[in-house]
Amino acid sequence: MTGRPTLAVVGATGAVGTVMLRILSERADIWGEIRLIASARSAGRKLTVRGAQVEVTALSEDAFDGADIALFGVPGEVAAAWAPVAAARGAVVVDGSGAFLADADVPLVVPEVNPHALRSRPRGIVASPGSATLTMIVALGALHAEYGLRELVVSSYEAASGAGRAGVDTLRAQLALVAGTELGTQPGDLRRAVGDATGPFPEPVALNVVPWAGPPRADGWSARELAVREETRKVLGLAALPVAVTCVQVPVVTTHSLTVHARFQREVAVDGAREILATAPGVVLCDDPAAGEFPTPADVVGTDPTWVGRLRRALDDPAALEFFVCGDNLRKGAALNCVQIAELLAGPAGGEPAGADRPGVTGL
Amino acid sequence: MTGRPTLAVVGATGAVGTVMLRILSERADIWGEIRLIASARSAGRKLTVRGAQVEVTALSEDAFDGADIALFGVPGEVAAAWAPVAAARGAVVVDGSGAFLADADVPLVVPEVNPHALRSRPRGIVASPGSATLTMIVALGALHAEYGLRELVVSSYEAASGAGRAGVDTLRAQLALVAGTELGTQPGDLRRAVGDATGPFPEPVALNVVPWAGPPRADGWSARELAVREETRKVLGLAALPVAVTCVQVPVVTTHSLTVHARFQREVAVDGAREILATAPGVVLCDDPAAGEFPTPADVVGTDPTWVGRLRRALDDPAALEFFVCGDNLRKGAALNCVQIAELLAGPAGGEPAGADRPGVTGL
Repeated sequence: MTGRPTLAVVGATGAVGTVMLRILSERADIWGEIRLIASARSAGRKLTVRGAQVEVTALSEDAFDGADIALFGVPGEVAAAWAPVAAARGAVVVDGSGAFLADADVPLVVPEVNPHALRSRPRGIVASPGSATLTMIVALGALHAEYGLRELVVSSYEAASGAGRAGVDTLRAQLALVAGTELGTQPGDLRRAVGDATGPFPEPVALNVVPWAGPPRADGWSARELAVREETRKVLGLAALPVAVTCVQVPVVTTHSLTVHARFQREVAVDGAREILATAPGVVLCDDPAAGEFPTPADVVGTDPTWVGRLRRALDDPAALEFFVCGDNLRKGAALNCVQIAELLAGPAGGEPAGADRPGVTGL
Repeated sequence: MTGRPTLAVVGATGAVGTVMLRILSERADIWGEIRLIASARSAGRKLTVRGAQVEVTALSEDAFDGADIALFGVPGEVAAAWAPVAAARGAVVVDGSGAFLADADVPLVVPEVNPHALRSRPRGIVASPGSATLTMIVALGALHAEYGLRELVVSSYEAASGAGRAGVDTLRAQLALVAGTELGTQPGDLRRAVGDATGPFPEPVALNVVPWAGPPRADGWSARELAVREETRKVLGLAALPVAVTCVQVPVVTTHSLTVHARFQREVAVDGAREILATAPGVVLCDDPAAGEFPTPADVVGTDPTWVGRLRRALDDPAALEFFVCGDNLRKGAALNCVQIAELLAGPAGGEPAGADRPGVTGL
């Protein structure tokens, strides 16, 4: 190759894009140019990446010229429209929006679990799962490799930043309204206090939990719940895995938590599962509740790994494990997984080679 | 009978006792004397019940003389010591502390589900389940009666008032600390801000979720999780029911929520389940998420029923249902269930007669 690859970050000014730039600045620098792309109204702004100021370019067809890899940190409708454009201009797109979940010819990749899926990307697009799936999938993948996953029942405790900056701003504004009051003790008092200021949520989230994140799909399921099922099946290569998910919004700023009931093909030994999780790349086992050791969002936020605690075998099923898992939904749950995929694409150093269907860049 | 029964309320000044007095004041008045009992330091205080001021009596053996029924709204160690005393003095004790969960000769009763269990109470003590179990058990009992429960996977979203007044005070104090700040975005920032002021919780609860409520039991389970399993089995009369529970504390003042994955003996039809829940006593079905209808703690707090929403059949198992359920942990989850048991004991009007092993009071 003649030089380091050029990386474009699309949606560089958004909640996920901001974290992408921070992560790119923290990790080993393998990139040539890092080009920042955002909507026309953000063009000309300067953002810091790798310690240098970089001017934001407006999203356009030409913006992708010469880019080897394009990280998309944008809403689904923007990704659906622009990822094919970037791919046509020669960039390999890494998209975290979920826009391509239903496409069999767009691989869905978690570098710790299925890096081999990167090999085939006929449309020049690679997808990264949503944040709820990414909260558990690295730990789950490690256990599946040993025991063979047979069934999954999952409940989520999802942070406000999963709904972007508007989610965080809404939670903070509601917290300011309820702090110092006696709200939360009479039916409807929170809703009256908050009024229409529910932001991206259907109900108040401060001092509340909201068991719904639309849009709705058939038979009472939400799109997000079905996405967790589809993503888990796709990443683990288990097309018929039974997965039951309930997604619930909680008043946490950043870091999703999940309770996981995982049933396996064969009997599990807790000590064996513990050993697997303690040594799995990208996983931290934090599990001694009697000594105060279990993960919570407040301790996990801002960190990269999947944190697993409360690991125990089901009392009534020797083939099932229960655990609680936390992960920063903006880092591993979004920006970090995309950056890891880009690193894999950029060269063999980052993991399994991704093929060599494009000259000039190692691994691309 | 010569008169209306005398009711003693033990722990009348506490979080649960306060709600007991409120509920006794709201419901049909079937009681003669209502006697208020609390620790010596609260003796002499006057509290309002049924619109009248009543002076608090200090807890003592004599305090139970002439009481027909004694509602215990006190911690487990107080109940363990004093319930047998009250029973020896002739009162039927209704205890919500969990102190007698392991006792086969103390029936565990939910009036909508197993009122018949009241018939046999050889020790003169009747127990009421804990708040997490009571959040789901009325809905679950109705579904079990039709479909036959075979397995349960439950995750809780538990309110601060489950830890009493100290829990609520701690949550409110932490909210005041974090409101108007950028806390919740850096690892450990909440813990540093909160310092040692975690009250009854092992970690900060504001802007956090805490997957642990001790004390610890064997193999990584908490006492609360095992209690949900034992209580569910005992109330439903399913001694070997597989139950997997994870209890998680969330920053809500009052009203627990649970996600429930319930597998039945036979195939379930969602329409049939909907009909059962819509007509079951003590249950409100609130389930049209596309129209914004699902229960949240903010709407349910202060109400009596079990609110069920997000009802759907598991996509991969025609015999399993998923649902989300909310219930006020101080009302049905504690005080109300005890009052309902007392009403059943006091006479046939309140439900199934409880036997007539004691003269002078109908049903006792």
